[in-house]
Amino acid sequence: MQALLVTQPENRRYLSGYTAEDHSAQESSGALLIPLRGRPLLLTDFRFQLHAESEAGAWYDIVLYQRGPVPLLVKLLPKLGLKRLAFESHAMMHATALRLAEALRPSGVETMGSTDLVERLRECKSEAEIELIRRAVWLNEDVFRECYKQLGPGMTEKEAARHIEATMLRLGAEGPSFPTIVAAGPNGALPHAVPTDRPIRQGEPVVIDMGVRLAGYCSDMTRTVVLGDPDRPTVERIRLVRQAQKAAMARIRAGAMARQVDRAARQTIATAGLGDRFGHGLGHGVGLAVHEAPYLNKRSRRQLAAGMVVTVEPGVYLPEWGGIRLENMVVVRPDGCELLNRDTTFLDI
Amino acid sequence: MQALLVTQPENRRYLSGYTAEDHSAQESSGALLIPLRGRPLLLTDFRFQLHAESEAGAWYDIVLYQRGPVPLLVKLLPKLGLKRLAFESHAMMHATALRLAEALRPSGVETMGSTDLVERLRECKSEAEIELIRRAVWLNEDVFRECYKQLGPGMTEKEAARHIEATMLRLGAEGPSFPTIVAAGPNGALPHAVPTDRPIRQGEPVVIDMGVRLAGYCSDMTRTVVLGDPDRPTVERIRLVRQAQKAAMARIRAGAMARQVDRAARQTIATAGLGDRFGHGLGHGVGLAVHEAPYLNKRSRRQLAAGMVVTVEPGVYLPEWGGIRLENMVVVRPDGCELLNRDTTFLDI
Repeated sequence: MQALLVTQPENRRYLSGYTAEDHSAQESSGALLIPLRGRPLLLTDFRFQLHAESEAGAWYDIVLYQRGPVPLLVKLLPKLGLKRLAFESHAMMHATALRLAEALRPSGVETMGSTDLVERLRECKSEAEIELIRRAVWLNEDVFRECYKQLGPGMTEKEAARHIEATMLRLGAEGPSFPTIVAAGPNGALPHAVPTDRPIRQGEPVVIDMGVRLAGYCSDMTRTVVLGDPDRPTVERIRLVRQAQKAAMARIRAGAMARQVDRAARQTIATAGLGDRFGHGLGHGVGLAVHEAPYLNKRSRRQLAAGMVVTVEPGVYLPEWGGIRLENMVVVRPDGCELLNRDTTFLDI
Repeated sequence: MQALLVTQPENRRYLSGYTAEDHSAQESSGALLIPLRGRPLLLTDFRFQLHAESEAGAWYDIVLYQRGPVPLLVKLLPKLGLKRLAFESHAMMHATALRLAEALRPSGVETMGSTDLVERLRECKSEAEIELIRRAVWLNEDVFRECYKQLGPGMTEKEAARHIEATMLRLGAEGPSFPTIVAAGPNGALPHAVPTDRPIRQGEPVVIDMGVRLAGYCSDMTRTVVLGDPDRPTVERIRLVRQAQKAAMARIRAGAMARQVDRAARQTIATAGLGDRFGHGLGHGVGLAVHEAPYLNKRSRRQLAAGMVVTVEPGVYLPEWGGIRLENMVVVRPDGCELLNRDTTFLDI
């Protein structure tokens, strides 16, 4: 290939500093055209021109299209002498990729799909990126601590989630990094529950999974809290999940296999007879995207490397009863892991 | 084709009532498999099982996958006797479409891309949908009226946008339907400006473009307000844009061509010598997605039909100075259009 067309929004931001977001998968705010030699280009439309120039203009030539990037590429690529264009196969719709290939064929330009080239670069964070992530983690914790104290019996899950998201904005977040989960009692048995109109009750576990975006970088944290005094089984399950989280964290260091870290948590939960109640992976990378590589699960063949930032989030889910999930974020370091969280609410009980 | 695989999130919700959202273009919460004959299926993973059953279980069989939908389809399609599967080419990543075709080939199942089948169904809204959209419009106006009065000189664009989004949540919205735009003075020259740390000043036009999502349906409204007394040129430009909006609305009715409606607004602005300062389309459909078909612009060949809900949002943009944009939402009716907005702030001045 002689050039890479970057359409994945976080990749675009990572490589260019251009922060405009896509309204949807079908409404892009631009693409990068990065030739192997020569100055890279940012293709966008006039609505984003000033924005693009101010953020990426120092490194990128800003080129405007009127009818989308495809006709512009048809004009541009032959002029730049580019005959083989790689595009991001995982970040371009099938219909668009076909249209692009067809439009370029008459000019003798070949296209080929590539995957995860830039994602691999994004996996290991610089110290500057880690600092931004740390701020997002701390802001998230500030929001959590302010909000969980205001939870009261009778407040619905939806009300709690909205209050959390409003507080995120008030305390300075760009927004939630994903839709906030508040799942009380039986609803907590759904790891990705959507908040309902069910009121929260005294004594039941309430899973709160929340994250903010700040300067583009994400945080992600889960706590399971109880209004009033938790009963014996709840306390034991929280302790079990916390123990699993610690067992996993003890395995994290540069060079460790992702699946072994996952296994450490899974074995802890299995020894309590709840092995089949932890039905999701242990964690995932966090950066410009709230879910990104590497993934910590039993099928992974990845080795951890210094600078990766991952979540550690074991859980147990019992239909009818509810769920417990505890999630912290850590940085993979040469000799272990660095915890980014400071909050300890309902962690060591 | 013998079945359609629906992956586009709004299409999925429209056809099944299943409200789970995708975390990102690469993290789906499920797909519909709709055979020409027989009961439709909703494919998802265990995290969404209860959610899917409660919302779509009456009409759809819920089938769970462990490693994504592709291996499940490989098992399922031959069992259902389906040999030709259409997928949504505009809503499936190129890499996924290739993987699907390759995985199905050994079982003799052929795949083919289709586009916009369900989108066409979504264009004309039922009265029940229109009522939901109306509520989203009114809620958006409530938020706007509460917030714009609190704008004061010195407040930054970002602060204003955050305050608006926090108010949306407080007043009961599911969230903003797109990132709120507050663009004061020169920043208003960018139709899709991102709010900055620039403080709003007395006398300059402030473009506020905002929308909420409520029960899944979206609203979208733009007002251009001025703190203190607007000067003569500002007043004249607001009047011009308002006149363009009214000229366009006067053309809207079932049977009208979308491009003629666009032209009516464009001609009004051109007569004032600002024809080249209105660089975007006049409007777009609104429903489960905040931007959807039909699009009102000069290249459109679509005819409007009763029940379509569209925005009417002409604007003028003058680099250095700023912008004026006014946006209302209307329902296309057999003999004209029905205005969904009640707010008249800075419209007829």
